[in-house]
Amino acid sequence: MDDLNAFVPGPRCTVQGAPGGTLSGLSFAVKDLIDVAAWPTGGGNPDWPRAHPVPGQHAWVVRTLLAAGASVVGKTVTDEVSLGILGENAHDGTPVNPRAPDRVPGGSSSGSASVVAAGLCDFALGTDSGGSVRVPASFCGLYGIRPTHGRIDFSGITVQSPSADTCGWLARDAATFARVGEVLCGGTLPGPLPTRLLVATDAWGFADEAVQQALAPMLERLARIIGERRDVLLAPQGLSVWQRAQRVLQSSESWQTFEPWLDEYNPRFAFSVARNLVMGSMITDADRSAAALMRAEARARLRHLLADVTPTGGAILCLPTTPFPAPRRGRPNSELAFLRERISCLTSHGGLTGVPQVSLPGATVEGAPVGLSIVGRQGSDLDLMAVARAFEDA
Amino acid sequence: MDDLNAFVPGPRCTVQGAPGGTLSGLSFAVKDLIDVAAWPTGGGNPDWPRAHPVPGQHAWVVRTLLAAGASVVGKTVTDEVSLGILGENAHDGTPVNPRAPDRVPGGSSSGSASVVAAGLCDFALGTDSGGSVRVPASFCGLYGIRPTHGRIDFSGITVQSPSADTCGWLARDAATFARVGEVLCGGTLPGPLPTRLLVATDAWGFADEAVQQALAPMLERLARIIGERRDVLLAPQGLSVWQRAQRVLQSSESWQTFEPWLDEYNPRFAFSVARNLVMGSMITDADRSAAALMRAEARARLRHLLADVTPTGGAILCLPTTPFPAPRRGRPNSELAFLRERISCLTSHGGLTGVPQVSLPGATVEGAPVGLSIVGRQGSDLDLMAVARAFEDA
Repeated sequence: MDDLNAFVPGPRCTVQGAPGGTLSGLSFAVKDLIDVAAWPTGGGNPDWPRAHPVPGQHAWVVRTLLAAGASVVGKTVTDEVSLGILGENAHDGTPVNPRAPDRVPGGSSSGSASVVAAGLCDFALGTDSGGSVRVPASFCGLYGIRPTHGRIDFSGITVQSPSADTCGWLARDAATFARVGEVLCGGTLPGPLPTRLLVATDAWGFADEAVQQALAPMLERLARIIGERRDVLLAPQGLSVWQRAQRVLQSSESWQTFEPWLDEYNPRFAFSVARNLVMGSMITDADRSAAALMRAEARARLRHLLADVTPTGGAILCLPTTPFPAPRRGRPNSELAFLRERISCLTSHGGLTGVPQVSLPGATVEGAPVGLSIVGRQGSDLDLMAVARAFEDA
Repeated sequence: MDDLNAFVPGPRCTVQGAPGGTLSGLSFAVKDLIDVAAWPTGGGNPDWPRAHPVPGQHAWVVRTLLAAGASVVGKTVTDEVSLGILGENAHDGTPVNPRAPDRVPGGSSSGSASVVAAGLCDFALGTDSGGSVRVPASFCGLYGIRPTHGRIDFSGITVQSPSADTCGWLARDAATFARVGEVLCGGTLPGPLPTRLLVATDAWGFADEAVQQALAPMLERLARIIGERRDVLLAPQGLSVWQRAQRVLQSSESWQTFEPWLDEYNPRFAFSVARNLVMGSMITDADRSAAALMRAEARARLRHLLADVTPTGGAILCLPTTPFPAPRRGRPNSELAFLRERISCLTSHGGLTGVPQVSLPGATVEGAPVGLSIVGRQGSDLDLMAVARAFEDA
């Protein structure tokens, strides 16, 4: 596992954590979209650092983790400026998926997932706008969180789509995963667990049958620790309708974010990445308005589903994190385009509504990992981590 | 002039010409879209050679020139897979314009124009689908030809848009320019010159006023050696209407040409190049049909204008090669996009109708070269070279 192609090339970025903190002794890697003071933020694109000065200070997340005692052991390869879900980077190469070396690691937090799965550090930071922590967590067999939108301070992190951008993390075990969460969310895990498990039948049905079968024992285990179980629809309008709405909103915002850089620096991109940016440039106001209305509907839907059900406990929703395990490496664009769209049918609710989601490891299909996700109402990040701990112990 | 960034990096490709030919003693450079046996054809893109085997034989043009005694002294930088008109290559860098070092060299035969203008060889091969020989000839102060479509065997040359692709060449003096032409066109310069000079007033009016003024003495000189002079419209439907039609046809064909490579290899491109490819992918059959009709009109127009006027002489048309001299290097995409479109308003008749065109050097604006072009009927390549020789001597 020496040559994972997961740390960014060049000298390894290391920063010692403060002595005596709650995360003392833990090591972590930092996705190369997140600032570490005095180290260039590469952004997964050779023309990004050219346009952006070396940061003078740490991102809030890095600063907070260092203050809590954890140490940085490297910066990790990412899809170009976070625009990707599979982890194939045409400039830096594809990080190895240690759990399925002939398959992609998932992205865009590809290198972060790779180094954690390989045991090279205890946890790693990523970002998730459209699935960029959840997907590599699923594909590499890790715990991974997309926190509530706005919960984790995003300063010092490369913006993609402000209405969807979040900073999350990946770990091999639920205890470490939760310890990091307590530091970054500023709280402690609650004692009582949610009391109602909602099974998103539309999302389950959308996954490959082999994935449904592989995740079934995990679902049973989860149901045992939560209690009441109900079948619901996540997206009555259609998962693909939600996906399309989120794609319109996120692609528009990405174009707005990156257009000044594209104009001035004419950066190099893999064709597929450039194509998606161009598509974002062509979205009409009418499409954006329609998508924003669908977002309002989706938010109302999740508020309704995830409302507190008793004074002491809420509901959580569960669904497969991805509809299939990691695809093989090096497939043609024409195949990958549809796979990306299918994946985002199961991840778009996150960017669309801002709710937190944790992917739990524990199943495989043909030897390749696939994750089970739990989703809670806005602000329930620590509740989800408590479920992850209880689930691991169960 | 040692570091022009005009030859492709790595070992210099050299091949000795056959002894005793008519081009004996002449040296030439080869645009890196044209095969030289046993040397990779780089195509101006880092992911092109990966997908294309090292050629086993020379392109027809290279073989023919070697047989005539000329020697290859290197392969030259090109815009990515010939998709560019300014000569800025995000992977290989921009070759120096020796005549105006703070400006672009023009493209896509950028390196070929650069090395000839710098005196590093006697002539150089390029390709011209939308202006890729004519524009660098204008910007670097060289003779350059876009031959009659189909006249020069294209085998062993990277295809872009088959209905528009041609192989041309650049030289500093008209004598060398014509000697190469006699070899590649298989003939000798005719004695009698064309007898009617048509001044394309729409094209002249489209050029910057400073360009019109700078070219005026050249036009006078040309009129003196030809004789009768008449004002005509090149494109009664509008230069921009012809430009749009040619862009539709050429972009569609480019997309068809490159799509299998894009799909399988997901190559890296400068954003502007990828964007144009994407635009090509979205052209409708209705747009293609309309453009093909306009092409038929344009062909009829040039047949009408350039018909023989006497038993011994034909008509030639003249216009500014480019509407302005070379733009400064490193301008933002938003500026360059409009400049590219303006340039192609003066070059699109070539791809659209297949007629030959020669750009003559001799004028400057603010010290930067700009060329005067002569256009003849299909097959009049040697006539145009004869005019170039007479013009140089006049």
